[in-house]
Parts: sequence; C-alpha cells; structure tokens
Amino acid sequence: MQWTKKNIPLQQLTSGETLNLTVHTIKGHAGPHVHIQSSVHGAEIQGNAVILLLMEKLKSLKLNGSITFIPLANPFGTNNKHGTYTYGRYNPITGHNWNRNYVDIINATKTDLSKFCEEHIDLPWQEIKFKYKQFLADLIDSYIEKLTLENKIQMNNKVNLILQKEAITSDGVLDLHTGPVATRYLYAAEYTEAIAKHLLIPNILVIPHEFGGAMDEASFMPWVHLIEAFKKAGREILCDVEAFTLEYGSEETFSLDDAQADVECILNYLRYKGMLDGEVKKIQGQYSKLANFQTLYSPIAGLVDYKKAPGESYDKGQLLANIYQLQKLDPQNPIESTVTPLYASEAGIIINRFPSSAVHEGVELFQMITNVYHD
Amino acid sequence: MQWTKKNIPLQQLTSGETLNLTVHTIKGHAGPHVHIQSSVHGAEIQGNAVILLLMEKLKSLKLNGSITFIPLANPFGTNNKHGTYTYGRYNPITGHNWNRNYVDIINATKTDLSKFCEEHIDLPWQEIKFKYKQFLADLIDSYIEKLTLENKIQMNNKVNLILQKEAITSDGVLDLHTGPVATRYLYAAEYTEAIAKHLLIPNILVIPHEFGGAMDEASFMPWVHLIEAFKKAGREILCDVEAFTLEYGSEETFSLDDAQADVECILNYLRYKGMLDGEVKKIQGQYSKLANFQTLYSPIAGLVDYKKAPGESYDKGQLLANIYQLQKLDPQNPIESTVTPLYASEAGIIINRFPSSAVHEGVELFQMITNVYHD
Amino acid sequence: MQWTKKNIPLQQLTSGETLNLTVHTIKGHAGPHVHIQSSVHGAEIQGNAVILLLMEKLKSLKLNGSITFIPLANPFGTNNKHGTYTYGRYNPITGHNWNRNYVDIINATKTDLSKFCEEHIDLPWQEIKFKYKQFLADLIDSYIEKLTLENKIQMNNKVNLILQKEAITSDGVLDLHTGPVATRYLYAAEYTEAIAKHLLIPNILVIPHEFGGAMDEASFMPWVHLIEAFKKAGREILCDVEAFTLEYGSEETFSLDDAQADVECILNYLRYKGMLDGEVKKIQGQYSKLANFQTLYSPIAGLVDYKKAPGESYDKGQLLANIYQLQKLDPQNPIESTVTPLYASEAGIIINRFPSSAVHEGVELFQMITNVYHD
Amino acid sequence: MQWTKKNIPLQQLTSGETLNLTVHTIKGHAGPHVHIQSSVHGAEIQGNAVILLLMEKLKSLKLNGSITFIPLANPFGTNNKHGTYTYGRYNPITGHNWNRNYVDIINATKTDLSKFCEEHIDLPWQEIKFKYKQFLADLIDSYIEKLTLENKIQMNNKVNLILQKEAITSDGVLDLHTGPVATRYLYAAEYTEAIAKHLLIPNILVIPHEFGGAMDEASFMPWVHLIEAFKKAGREILCDVEAFTLEYGSEETFSLDDAQADVECILNYLRYKGMLDGEVKKIQGQYSKLANFQTLYSPIAGLVDYKKAPGESYDKGQLLANIYQLQKLDPQNPIESTVTPLYASEAGIIINRFPSSAVHEGVELFQMITNVYHD
Repeated sequence: MQWTKKNIPLQQLTSGETLNLTVHTIKGHAGPHVHIQSSVHGAEIQGNAVILLLMEKLKSLKLNGSITFIPLANPFGTNNKHGTYTYGRYNPITGHNWNRNYVDIINATKTDLSKFCEEHIDLPWQEIKFKYKQFLADLIDSYIEKLTLENKIQMNNKVNLILQKEAITSDGVLDLHTGPVATRYLYAAEYTEAIAKHLLIPNILVIPHEFGGAMDEASFMPWVHLIEAFKKAGREILCDVEAFTLEYGSEETFSLDDAQADVECILNYLRYKGMLDGEVKKIQGQYSKLANFQTLYSPIAGLVDYKKAPGESYDKGQLLANIYQLQKLDPQNPIESTVTPLYASEAGIIINRFPSSAVHEGVELFQMITNVYHD
Repeated sequence: MQWTKKNIPLQQLTSGETLNLTVHTIKGHAGPHVHIQSSVHGAEIQGNAVILLLMEKLKSLKLNGSITFIPLANPFGTNNKHGTYTYGRYNPITGHNWNRNYVDIINATKTDLSKFCEEHIDLPWQEIKFKYKQFLADLIDSYIEKLTLENKIQMNNKVNLILQKEAITSDGVLDLHTGPVATRYLYAAEYTEAIAKHLLIPNILVIPHEFGGAMDEASFMPWVHLIEAFKKAGREILCDVEAFTLEYGSEETFSLDDAQADVECILNYLRYKGMLDGEVKKIQGQYSKLANFQTLYSPIAGLVDYKKAPGESYDKGQLLANIYQLQKLDPQNPIESTVTPLYASEAGIIINRFPSSAVHEGVELFQMITNVYHD
Repeated sequence: MQWTKKNIPLQQLTSGETLNLTVHTIKGHAGPHVHIQSSVHGAEIQGNAVILLLMEKLKSLKLNGSITFIPLANPFGTNNKHGTYTYGRYNPITGHNWNRNYVDIINATKTDLSKFCEEHIDLPWQEIKFKYKQFLADLIDSYIEKLTLENKIQMNNKVNLILQKEAITSDGVLDLHTGPVATRYLYAAEYTEAIAKHLLIPNILVIPHEFGGAMDEASFMPWVHLIEAFKKAGREILCDVEAFTLEYGSEETFSLDDAQADVECILNYLRYKGMLDGEVKKIQGQYSKLANFQTLYSPIAGLVDYKKAPGESYDKGQLLANIYQLQKLDPQNPIESTVTPLYASEAGIIINRFPSSAVHEGVELFQMITNVYHD
Repeated sequence: MQWTKKNIPLQQLTSGETLNLTVHTIKGHAGPHVHIQSSVHGAEIQGNAVILLLMEKLKSLKLNGSITFIPLANPFGTNNKHGTYTYGRYNPITGHNWNRNYVDIINATKTDLSKFCEEHIDLPWQEIKFKYKQFLADLIDSYIEKLTLENKIQMNNKVNLILQKEAITSDGVLDLHTGPVATRYLYAAEYTEAIAKHLLIPNILVIPHEFGGAMDEASFMPWVHLIEAFKKAGREILCDVEAFTLEYGSEETFSLDDAQADVECILNYLRYKGMLDGEVKKIQGQYSKLANFQTLYSPIAGLVDYKKAPGESYDKGQLLANIYQLQKLDPQNPIESTVTPLYASEAGIIINRFPSSAVHEGVELFQMITNVYHD
C-alpha cells in the first residue's frame, strides 16, 4: 500500500498566513476510489476522529482501490470562535453556509451531455465512467480557472470548489458532518436508497435529485445528469457512484471511543464496494423522505426543558419539551403559570435539537423524521 | 389628513420582552397607497432619517392617497451588535440574510391565476387592481396562518411575512436600505425601468423578473405574474404598481442633513404617482442590468488602500486599490515589495466597497456597475 | 405569606424596547432577608429552574423572613446569541465580563467607617446591622444618582448597580451561576468558610477578602470593611451576613429534574438561617483556596479528547486529555503521530472544562481545584 | 545600515497553522534603540502604513541607533471578523482586551530593586541603563519560562509577553493604535510629558505612573520603579527611556497618503532622540490628565446624529449630538417628538466617538479631553 500526501494552499488571511488542506491518499490494489472529508462545518469534528481511526485500521488491511482523506476540510470554519464555541456553520463575514457553494458543474457550465452520450453510447459502463470522470475533471478545472481570472472566487466558493475538484473523480464520496445535538443519521440520494443501509446508520434521509449547493449533491448530480442523458439516448445505466453525507452525532465533540463504532460504518461500505474483504453487513433502515424531515420552530421564546432526546421516537400527542416563560410567573403557582408544553403533532423520531435551552421565538427547536418507513 | 398608528408584536425574546413594529399610516384624499419601510438590515439606518423628515414635510403638504411608514422594520437586526458595529445583514443565529425570506406568494401557494383573469378579463384595470389586492391579502393571510399552525415560522420568515402582509395592497413599495460603504443607488424591476428615474437617484440597477426572496421582488412578482396571466388570456396590461429598493449611502450612519436630499427622491416619486402637487422632475439615469453588477472578490489577503470611492467612475486599466502584504516586506524596498495594485478589467462605476481595509482572500472588495447605459 | 412583584426598567435598546428585571419578594414572619438572583451570565440558566422550583416549594412552607428572587437578572446577556449558543459571559460590544462591574461601595465612595463605628460602638449587633444596611442603601443610591447625572453609566455598570442596590440590605446573597461544562461548586468568602457547607455543595472555593468586581464580593466586602473598622475601634464582630456564588453545573442547560437536588441546597441554607423549620444538614466539604483553583491553558492547539470529566478527581501523573494535531499525521502511524497526552502535574478535582473539543493554543482547557482539604 | 528579519511563532490554531510575528530590525551607527509595533488591536491598522512608509524613508537616511518594527503585532486579532468588521479589540473567546495582559515585570516577579541600586549607585547613568536592560531581559525570560512550564499562558498573555520581551531593552517604545472614529492623539507618562510634544501630535493624554496592563505602561513602569528605587537610595535620575501609545485616527482604515503626515511624527521623535539628523520640531500641546479624559455613555438608546466630530473643540452647553427615538414618534410633530439633544456639560475636545449611529443605552458615545492645558 502506498501513501501520498499533498498540501493545498486554501485561503490567505489578512495577517499573511495561509490556511491549508492536507490531502492523504492511500492506494492499494486496483479498485474503486473513495473520497472522505470532514469538518466542512467547523464545529462538526467527530469525523476527524473517524478518519484518524480509519487510517489506523487500514494499516493492517488489504485495500482494493484507493481512498482520499481530507480531515479539517475547512480550516477557516474550524478556527472561527465567537465565545468559546465554534461558529462553524456559516461564514462569519457573509452568513453563507459553508456547505452551499459547491456547484452542479454540468448546469453551471451549461454543458449539454447529449454529445458525450452519443460518442460513448456503445462503450461498457466502466469505460464510460472512466471517460466521464476525466470529462468532469476538465470541466471543473476550466470553471475554476475562469472564475479565478475574473476575481470572482468568494471565500465559500474557494473552499467548496477545491474540495469538489479533489472529489470529482471518485466512485464514492463520504462527507462527514454532525448535527447540533444530534443522533447519527445520513443523507442518501434516491438512486442510492438501497445502498445506504450498508453504512449501518439506521436513520436515513432520502433526498431527491435536486441541487441545493451541498457536497453530496454536487457529487451525485453529474451522475444523475449522465443517467438521464443516456436514458434519452436510449440506454439505461445502473450507476455505481454514490455520495453520502454522514452525520456523526453532536457538534463540538471529538471522541476516539465513539469513533470505534463510527468507523465500522465506513469499513462496511468499503466492503460493499469490494475494496475490503469480509462479510458485508446491512441493517434495517428507518427511511424518511427529505420532505418529511420536519423542523419545529419554537412558537414562543423562553427556557426549554427538552423531554425527548435525539434518537428517541415518539407518538402523536407525546410531550416533546416544556418551555418556561418566567415573565408570566405567578408566585401562587410558579410552574403552572410559566410552562407551555409542546406536544408532537404526529409520530416521528427526533434527529436534532437546538443546543441551547435559551431560545428566541422562531429558532430551530427540533428536527425530526416523520412518515418513517422501513425496507 | 389623518394619522393612525398601530403596534405589531414581532418577536419574543428569551428574556420575555417582545420586539415590536410601529406602523404609522397617513391618509389624505383619495389616491394610491405607498408603503415605505427602512432598516430591514439592522446596520442600514439612514432610511429612518428619511422617513422622519418625510413625515415632517408631509405635515404641510396636501396628500392624495395614503402612505404607510415602518421605520426600524427589523428590531432584532437593529439591536444585534458584535463589537461596536451592528451585525445586521444576517441573522446571527442562522446566517440567513434578513432580506431573503419574503415569499413569491403566487408560487408559494401554487396559485393558478388563470381563473382570476378569466373572471375579470373585461373589468377596467383599476377595478382589477382593487380585486387583485384583496386576493393577495387573503392569500398571504392564509399562508401565514398555515405556517403558524404547523410551527414552521422561523425568525427571518416572521419578520419578512409580517412586513409583506403590510405592504401587499400597495401601489408603490419603497424599501430603504444602504450599502456597506456606498454611493446612492436603487434597484428597479425591468418593467419599471422608465419610472425609476423619477426617484432622482442616478445609479439604477435593472433586475429581471425573477424571485430571490427580497422585499422588492416579493412586492412586484405578484404583479408580474398577473401581467403574464392576462397576456395569456389575451389582454395586455400596463401595470402601475412598482417596488424599489433604495440604497441611501453607507451603513451605520444617520444624518438629518443628508436626509434633506434623500427625501426629495421620495417626494418626487409621490408627485409622479399623483399623490403630491408640484412639478415632476426626472434625471438622466445611469442604468446597468443586474447581470452587469459585478462583485470583485479580493484575489489576495492584505491591507487595502482604496483608490476609487463609491460613486466614482473609472476606465479599463485604472487603479482601483493597492493591497499591501506585509509578510513579503523586503526592507530594501518596503513599498514595492509589499504592494499589489488592482486594476479595472473594464470601465464602470464603483457602487459599494468593503467597509474595512483588513481583508481576507475572497471578500467582497468592490461592487461596481459595468456596461452602463443612459436613457 | 405575602408576595409582591415589581418591574425595574433596565436597559433601552436601539429599537426602542426596554429590557426589564422582574423582582419577586416573598415575606413571611419576622426574620432575615435573602437575595437570590440567576443568569447574570446569560448562558448560565439552570439557576432559573432552581428559583422556579424554590418558589413552588415555598407555597407549602412556613417562612421566617423574606426572600427576593430575580431570575434572568441580565436580559441583555440572555438574549445575545452568536450562532446557536448564548454569548452571555461578556458584553458583546465591550468584552466586559457581566460579573465584574459591581462596586465595593465603601471604597468607591471613599467612605471612612470609623465615624459609623464610633457612633454605634455600644449597640447590639442586630441594631448595628439594621443601621448599617440603611447606611449602605443610602450610599449606593447617591452613588448611582451621581453617575447618572454625569452620563457615566456604562452598560455593565447599569445591570450590576441595579442588582446590587436590590441586594444591599440582605442577610444572605445567593448568586446562581454555572460553569461552561462543569460540576456543581461554590465560592465562599474566608469568613464564611464554615457556613458554606450548609449549602450541601461539596466543592467549595474559599476566596480572600479582596474585591474583583463580582456580586458576591460586592455583597460581602461592605461587611468585611465593617468588621475591620470595628476591630480597629476595639470591638470584635461575628458577622452573620453572607454572600455566595453557586455554580449549578453546565451552561445552556435548563432542567427541572436536576433542580430537585439543586433546590435542596438553598432550602437547607434557609433552614440554617432559621428561615425554615426542619433539620439543618451539612456535608463534608472539599475545600480549596482560590489560589489553588488552577487553570490549565492548552499548551498546543488541536482536537481534544477529554479523559477526565468535571467532578472527577485524579492523581498526579494521570491522563487528563489527549490532544490530536492532524497536521502531523503520518499514515504509517496515524494515532501515535498526532496525539499529545496531557498529564496532571499534581492531584486535584476537575471543576470546569472548555465546552468545545476544537481548541486554539492558550484556551482554558480545564479548571481544577488542587491542595484540597476537608473539614 | 543593516537589516535583519526574524519570525516568531506566536499562536497555533486548531486547524494546525501557526500565526507568526515578523520582526524587522534596522541597525545604523551607535545610538539608542527604539521599538515600534502596530495593530495590537486588530482593527487599528493605520500604524502598519506608518511603519511601511517609515521603513521606506529610512532607506535614504543616516541612522544613529537601531529600530525594531513589528507590524501586525496581533495576527489573531487582525484576522477575527464578525460580519465585515474586524472584532479586534477583545479576544472573541474570552472578552479580554488585547492591550491589557502585559505585565509590570518588577511587581509580577516581586523583585526588590534596592539591591540593584546599591550595587550600581555610583555608575554613570548610561552604564546603569545598560545593566538594567539586561536585568529586565533576564527577568522576563524566566517569567515566561515559568508560566510556560506550568501551562499558564493564556492567549492574550502569549501575544503580550512575546511583544514585551522584544521591547524590553528599548530606549523608546511606540505602540501604534487608533481610536474607533477618532482624531490623532497620544498617551504619555507624567515623567515624559515634556518630551511628548516632539511627536507632533497635539492632543496629549498624560497618564499617571500606574499599571493597567497596557504596553506603554509595561514599558515605562520598570523605569519608574528604578527611578523610585534610586531616589530612595539617594540618587536622582533623569530617565531618557520613554514609551508612548500613538493613536493614528480611525480604525479599519489604511492610507499611505495619510501616513505621509503620520510618519513625520516618528521621524521627529527619532531626531529628538539623536537618531536622525535634522532640526527637531515641537508643537504646542493640548494636554489633559487621564482623569480628565471623559467618557460620555449614552444616557438613552436610539439613532444618533453626531454633531461634533473627533478633533473638534466645544464649549459648555454646545450641542454634541441629537439622539432620535422613533418609538416616541408623534406624526403631528415627527422630529420634535423624537429628538433628545445632548449638550456638553463642560468645555472640551472630542477625541473618539462610537463608530455606529445605532446605540443602545450605556455605550461609549464620545470620549473627550476636558480641563485642557497648554505648555
């Protein structure tokens, strides 16, 4: 097995230093290529523990294929603190979410794939795939070059495009995130719904084939476009390139002990891809369509006593939280006069909750999956 | 003339207090209704001086029609400071721009206007307008009610929807903003390009009939949809409802002296609308399509010596700024070794610049209009 | 029992609203007066749950004396968020700690207590105490009035002085705080070391009779000055006025379940003061002098895997945390090449830890008590 | 003339990069040593333009002595932005002012100078000075070493101690700052009051010989202590070591054009020190004791129309600002119903003003010098 390492200068700071990406690549025998990155949102750090442990485990395993690792994929986000917490979800200067400035490279460049399909319509899929990867790599190179020449690279774009360029020729992309206070869950594109269960994370959000600017979407949309273009040209493709966003629990936390279970998810995916030997496990997934990933915005402001934790399921009518409004306090009846219970309007599973008990009206109190189905 | 005032509770804070909107309405003789609001971005406060002075001037004028004034339209944004400056452009909790969560109420409710057109196809325009306003008011009421019932009102949505509800029956909407360090300019929808010059602000950005979440767009898109629907139904409409975003210079500044000129813009627009007596002035506009509103992102990090100020025009090749990178300092040649001049790649007019001379790579250094044309 | 409630307007906001304090007072039979406040640091909210539950419990108890409750004692701090967390420890505009602008009213007003002592040297202590409270109340009133007239009331001062004015005639002051991620502990002045154990919180920090700007110090220093002045005048006083800062665990958390144990601490203190009937409990305290309250600043930057939690004791040489620096990663030895273990240099008990695993060089990684002694 | 350059690693970031100081030293013929640093507060950047231009000018001058330059002396502060502005005055994690963690090295190490005086009582001053500098250098080295071993170096301490170590053997220290929106002014210790006028900045704040944690104080206090110790030992010293804080106008601004005048101040100081040839100029100073450096905290919240700018003098009773409170707006009398004029309570000169017109109650609206005297 062969390891290589490269540094990519990412972002100059006013003070003169440059923040860098470090990209490690491991190459074994012939096989697929998988791209794994973590901490695009700066406060979401458990993925780094997972990468570290995965690299440790790979020392003693036989790999068919190659893997790229980019821990701390957004150093600017990681370094940004307001108070003791990491303000890592948004660019503190612009408010832009660090996971929304990737591009759907086919649409962004107004590329018509019909010519590509026509030329390669009769090739075996593996050859098409090989050529298409090269095609995408060229597209993104010239896209970045053009923006650079025109001084049109804003901060988020820079981070996202460099990562996307690294990932664009992969057969699998795993973007490691976390929620605020969260259970483990993942996002999978519709065409990969059946594959997602090999990641051994029970809560699976199925997202439609639309582009919203995120890494997983930017990674699978070029293949969705290709499948569609071939379909128009009369050939049905069963695509074996996937991209998932894995949410490894709560932000601000780094635990190698927890990573022992987390890394199993990826090892099993690699077995599924044929890149590692061993039995491929799968679990029964709890699926929910993205449209059923509900956010409950706090209807009032106050102090919240959370009654359901991420990972817990609940029935319609169950108590989710009590919100206390101390300005209403009647000393004859302190608790009763201040409390507003919040009940579930339908059954579901809590996925995320707001990380503070002090809430203004309208903050994201809970995110939950509803209309859950099993495979 | 009759003044009314109402308070709208806007947003509960954790501590128990509620932030409020104060809405003043002045009603004169019969005539159009104009809605004027300011400070949706909290740091952009000159519009409040303009509203104050405008209300002062109206005391001694005869008004045909009515005007709604909402100064300090986003108290949460106004109150939010990190350091001594107002962090007012984005929600500090979510990163959401405070001027991006209005709705295109026709699309958001999947409303098909063909039935409305059919029913009213033969009515005079003033009657259609009257009925359509009522139609819109009902739409937004039930839209808000539904979101509220489902606990789906996030913070930005609340502010934006309440303002939109206030404005939705207006014949003219003026949303008063400022840039960071900026000259005075405005945004006008394509169908109002010829009207914009009555606002006496020379720099005019012409925006297409697309929806991006801003107040002006949310105000004109229902009318754009109506025009289109009538066109399909065979009737050509010349719409006399407009919405403009006026950018009154730089943020963090409040000057009644400057407001003397700023208020003239609105008085003249009211004369144009027939709401005030007096000669309607117009100026020669410097127009630019939104696609030609360029942002120059800083290609490097460093300390910036700005050489062109907002309002200044420049030719291709002219010096816009010098960026100094002190880490490169060679004492044999201090200035030459550290400076990177930034030249214009094409002619234009500076509209905005970054309000700090300390810049990271990729920040919005300048915004400029290019391909400027005159009427 | 008689309840009264008053609102104190605290701080006008730019948008026009005023943040308020709500002060509840309960009065029973004759007896001492205790002042209880919470959330001077905005993110430290568990004290509000404690106050709520305490008020609930008092409904069915017989009280000798009176108690003032001020929950949410710093609404500006409570409301301030950068990202989803509360930036409540410091004023976001000035960086001033919200618990450092109380005054040592005797020193601040350059008051010479010798005259007071001389006049009252032969009175019984209860009468002296009564007169001194009135003396202090007058002092702070005229101090605040003078600053107000001179426009010298800065934001933190305002909050602190108003609270101090409310508390200044109390026989006991309980200022309810929390740590970042913390165990329960309290601060007690040296002269109250033996009393502190009645609060049933095992970890007790004994602070010297010096003034650093905090509420507890501002509350006990006037009495320390009085004791000293009487001592000079030849009379030894055993003072029964105390002030404690209670740290109720971790910030951002509000739990009525946890409050069940927390409220027992205060009920027992009230029994100790003779204000409630019932057996007075005490526990064996783990004491540490403030000088032995150590902060371990992170010697390097990286991702921290915490190995000792607040509340845990450890011996010299034990592992406290592993810090991982991914930039050092050698793929031949991923974990070993990146880890820096942090060992204890002497025995102690962890009190606080940094609430994020992403740390820059020099942040407060742990606070621990060392040289712990028992009574 | 000989230039040397060194890098000092200053602060590791979570992401792995290290922020550095770059120290340039120029050495000419024999003579005094002057230390010049800028941007300890990150938003205060004009000092960097001054250093750059000064280095440029020195190319063609003959220097007697040596000068150390540390531009961008606090890269962490410089890089920290919340919104588009630099949050550079306080550590965003702790709220600590970046110019308050220097140490009074004599007091911090409990050093008794009587022995040093005794040993050197009969030496010529230049020799004493030489030996004392070495003494101070050793003191700070061992102080830093001890803190480092104990993991007691917090973030601000690190920056401040490293700078102090660089400056501690200087004959003159110039710490280049700016105000928020400010005129040019400087701080001078009482014993250097007569020297300050050679810096050609008219507004001079005379500070007492007390230590508050700032660089200038940390630089002159060791010499104040030495003078006092010698005085006790019977020898009167006329100390020719000075430290000044120069405030070069407003923050966030970098202008080489403005630096042309700013650099003259330092060139003239160097001539005064005998380090450059040429006529030594001086100006008539406008002096004020620090106790007369008044802060006017905004007595109410609202929108401020500033009527006196930094640098302007005013008489008692003159209008300083109008504060508008829109919530009070009476449409019959818009301006009169909302305005609160703020008049001067005594004569003075405006030095600083708050950089935003949106103010909460209690913010630092103006800083002014009063009881101004001339030399």
